[in-house]
Amino acid sequence: MTSNTAPPTASNPTESPALNLSEEQIIGFATQFDPQPYHLDRAAGDASIFGGLCASGWQVAALGTRLIGDALTQQDMNFVSLISVDSLRWRQPTFVDEELRAVTRVEGVEPTCSVPGCQTAVISAEIINQAGDVVAVLSGRAAIDAGGQLP
Amino acid sequence: MTSNTAPPTASNPTESPALNLSEEQIIGFATQFDPQPYHLDRAAGDASIFGGLCASGWQVAALGTRLIGDALTQQDMNFVSLISVDSLRWRQPTFVDEELRAVTRVEGVEPTCSVPGCQTAVISAEIINQAGDVVAVLSGRAAIDAGGQLP
Repeated sequence: MTSNTAPPTASNPTESPALNLSEEQIIGFATQFDPQPYHLDRAAGDASIFGGLCASGWQVAALGTRLIGDALTQQDMNFVSLISVDSLRWRQPTFVDEELRAVTRVEGVEPTCSVPGCQTAVISAEIINQAGDVVAVLSGRAAIDAGGQLP
Repeated sequence: MTSNTAPPTASNPTESPALNLSEEQIIGFATQFDPQPYHLDRAAGDASIFGGLCASGWQVAALGTRLIGDALTQQDMNFVSLISVDSLRWRQPTFVDEELRAVTRVEGVEPTCSVPGCQTAVISAEIINQAGDVVAVLSGRAAIDAGGQLP
């Protein structure tokens, strides 16, 4: 028998809606935080080992975390904040206007959290592009609002 | 006898110059990637568990990586890109205009790298504020331009 007061547990992977990074967003972020030629200029990107203007890895991670939040919402978990990262790997570049989605799996939920009023979700996610290629893989711990999960 | 053709090895911790995040930068980043009230609005930040408008953790990580690059440059290593993150922990919030520095240690250098023409530096860093408090701790692997290190 399933109880609707049970805390959430491990889930199947859930795919988020898509978001993209525009040329303006990629160049704007890189100018502030990651001023490499292939993040700043189309021609330099084309001439680089990546073969095109591509986003800073941290920008991909930040967008990916927003997508992870969206995926958790689809699982009725109110994402509050990422608490820690246990592993983050970038597999391939993310180019202008690629549609990114987060395929997010909740490995488990712990009842306590460093953020007051929250539980801790242990998560793993693949950030994929519109071709289904994995551009980044992230695992870590997220605070989720316990109010939405417990009576 | 020291050879100037030897690849770089482990180093003592090096402190980077300081950079800060303005209110405009914090709100601009959060609007795109991390739209939590305490990242978007001063009054909401003051009323939050953090006690003030504070930066998204990914913005701290991105700025921290720029500072790590600056610290590696001081060790005559031309930082190209972070390749992977093995651990990232946020210890306390980063508020508007706090001066952040990266205390960066090179744990070792491997001669090969997934980025052509580069070596891999295994790094660990503490991101500290002007009071010397650790706001984040990061370890991972970075590509450094081998051209600046090998003849």
